[in-house]
Amino acid sequence: MITVDSVWSDVQQVRDRGPLVHNITNYVVMNSTANALLAIGAAPVMAHAVQEVADMTALASALVINIGTLSEGWIEAMALAMRTAAEHDIPIVLDPVGAGATAYRTRTVAELMSGTAPTIVRGNASEIIAVAAGTGGTKGVDSADPAEAALEAARDLSARSGAVVAVTGEVDYVVDGDVLRITGGHPLMARVTGTGCTASALCAAFAAVNGSPFAATVHALAALGAAGAAAGARARGPGTMQLHLYDELHALESEQIVRHVGVAFA
Amino acid sequence: MITVDSVWSDVQQVRDRGPLVHNITNYVVMNSTANALLAIGAAPVMAHAVQEVADMTALASALVINIGTLSEGWIEAMALAMRTAAEHDIPIVLDPVGAGATAYRTRTVAELMSGTAPTIVRGNASEIIAVAAGTGGTKGVDSADPAEAALEAARDLSARSGAVVAVTGEVDYVVDGDVLRITGGHPLMARVTGTGCTASALCAAFAAVNGSPFAATVHALAALGAAGAAAGARARGPGTMQLHLYDELHALESEQIVRHVGVAFA
Amino acid sequence: MITVDSVWSDVQQVRDRGPLVHNITNYVVMNSTANALLAIGAAPVMAHAVQEVADMTALASALVINIGTLSEGWIEAMALAMRTAAEHDIPIVLDPVGAGATAYRTRTVAELMSGTAPTIVRGNASEIIAVAAGTGGTKGVDSADPAEAALEAARDLSARSGAVVAVTGEVDYVVDGDVLRITGGHPLMARVTGTGCTASALCAAFAAVNGSPFAATVHALAALGAAGAAAGARARGPGTMQLHLYDELHALESEQIVRHVGVAFA
Repeated sequence: MITVDSVWSDVQQVRDRGPLVHNITNYVVMNSTANALLAIGAAPVMAHAVQEVADMTALASALVINIGTLSEGWIEAMALAMRTAAEHDIPIVLDPVGAGATAYRTRTVAELMSGTAPTIVRGNASEIIAVAAGTGGTKGVDSADPAEAALEAARDLSARSGAVVAVTGEVDYVVDGDVLRITGGHPLMARVTGTGCTASALCAAFAAVNGSPFAATVHALAALGAAGAAAGARARGPGTMQLHLYDELHALESEQIVRHVGVAFA
Repeated sequence: MITVDSVWSDVQQVRDRGPLVHNITNYVVMNSTANALLAIGAAPVMAHAVQEVADMTALASALVINIGTLSEGWIEAMALAMRTAAEHDIPIVLDPVGAGATAYRTRTVAELMSGTAPTIVRGNASEIIAVAAGTGGTKGVDSADPAEAALEAARDLSARSGAVVAVTGEVDYVVDGDVLRITGGHPLMARVTGTGCTASALCAAFAAVNGSPFAATVHALAALGAAGAAAGARARGPGTMQLHLYDELHALESEQIVRHVGVAFA
Repeated sequence: MITVDSVWSDVQQVRDRGPLVHNITNYVVMNSTANALLAIGAAPVMAHAVQEVADMTALASALVINIGTLSEGWIEAMALAMRTAAEHDIPIVLDPVGAGATAYRTRTVAELMSGTAPTIVRGNASEIIAVAAGTGGTKGVDSADPAEAALEAARDLSARSGAVVAVTGEVDYVVDGDVLRITGGHPLMARVTGTGCTASALCAAFAAVNGSPFAATVHALAALGAAGAAAGARARGPGTMQLHLYDELHALESEQIVRHVGVAFA
């Protein structure tokens, strides 16, 4: 059962336990992802060398695979990290940044997923459609498609892969048999790079402390939505938005979840 | 004819069209470049794998090539992206970061330019001198030379390459037969890393919506100068400067261009 | 003799001379490291290609080697940069991020140090213990060990390597025969990624202007502690903390060192 209390319980678990989250992610967002994880109370680590990626993954409580600036050597490390995580029952969040924009991205996601099933897949509407269909034409990492359009793709992808699938945008959907619709956040979040990548990293932090990937994903997106709405209320623009988002993740209280976030069956 | 209205028209075009700008840029500034492009209203994408760089470039409305942290694999991707852009008539902005500091950088810029002519080259004085002369001795990415010293080099480089050449610093010059001198900005911009890289990325965003590379470059630098001056007026130091710059790019109004920026023939 | 005046003298030297600091560092912190160096008055450069790394190092007044996101090609560049720095009497700061977390990191640090002795080694307690012992089990880059626990390891490492060893955390220790204990800073610094990496980079900037690596390290950590305490007093959370830290490094006055920092023999 998803409630304000269940979200809040996971926030407190993340703060108390400080789970180590291993990220193989893109260059653009490494700094902001690390800062968001620190702000919520988790411990980020970034490592991608094939010589150490299995060792690092084995130490972690969750793994994030994000293909935003992928290249050949990194894909090998991603596949190895995913295998290691699966062997150790460590939850895996896959962020298929830009899937559909190029055949290389779409194919890479398909190969990674066929090697090891991720626990959670989080993307915007066009990315989820592309991952599900193996086709697409996304316009960079900013989707013009409403999240609703990707719901069918998300259901299909979840059913075939076994992963919880999150489609995020102005409204978020979390799909796993059930479909939950989450409202919250602030329009300025779309004008800060890496907000989606932050959402994926938070899903990993919450999955590290909650055995239900579905609940963890909903809780993470609700926490981010609450912090984003609170940050948006203080921000003058995208620059102040980014830093207030870290401040609000750090200072998050359950009242902000009550005030800013809605969760309902879709 | 460059006027406040012509600058403002391009700002509105960028906001309305949200052009996709493909960046092969350095690790240091990827996050800040993406945020600056989002703040002005463009859609940034970063990708460098040779397997996808042609596909990604073909989707874009402008290409930025920035050699700040170059290495062999990336140079191959840069050359391929530039060829692809030229084939699709997509404007190319080349930022020769640190040219002159090492022979490798100077040579790489020469090779990239001999392969495909960029539309716009933007650098500081010592970089432009080094690119023009194939020699140099720049002190990192911060030039002590006044921009004026590079005017002759810029004229020569523009005449030989056909590119619009922008020399930026305390005062900016845009050279293409004509030479325009642009004032604006704020001294704290030099204390934030990647401000020059941001200028290059904005030139690309404006070139995506304006068929005249000369006008687009002047407009982009005027917009940045206006936002920088407004941000500097609110900043306590380089940290607050960086975030206010994003806020002001996002909130830019034509009045700020009137108040803070001067453009004149040099 | 370490005094407020000796710290302040180095701050002024960095501002006056603007030493070029060459960084081969990790992707996560490149932007924040560059901004911190600019804020204190130094000139950062990042370059890692083996084709240019010797040339770039030879231009610099100090070298930072940080293994946070290491991989094979980068290790070769690090070794070459360290050799070049030693040949030119350029001080070398080694930041063994995550040493002990994986065998690859511990081994890489040992190999780099056996190739060329660094001037200064700065890490958290578990990293310094791991570097000293060639073993370890650090939890990512955030150490739960109090700095005191690493004092013996630091003494041993300093004696064997000849390097000044800094163990930073809630309290900092600088070890080189003598042991100095430095208090200052603010708890929020631990919630901003790369604060330790910033400390290493500042040690390099100060070593560029002060011939005593021991004094330079103490001065750099005192300056950071003063700026961090001042920033913490203004911050609402980790987001505002990061930017205020840059502002305070830029605006640092000797009064803040008096107010916020303590240095004593341990």
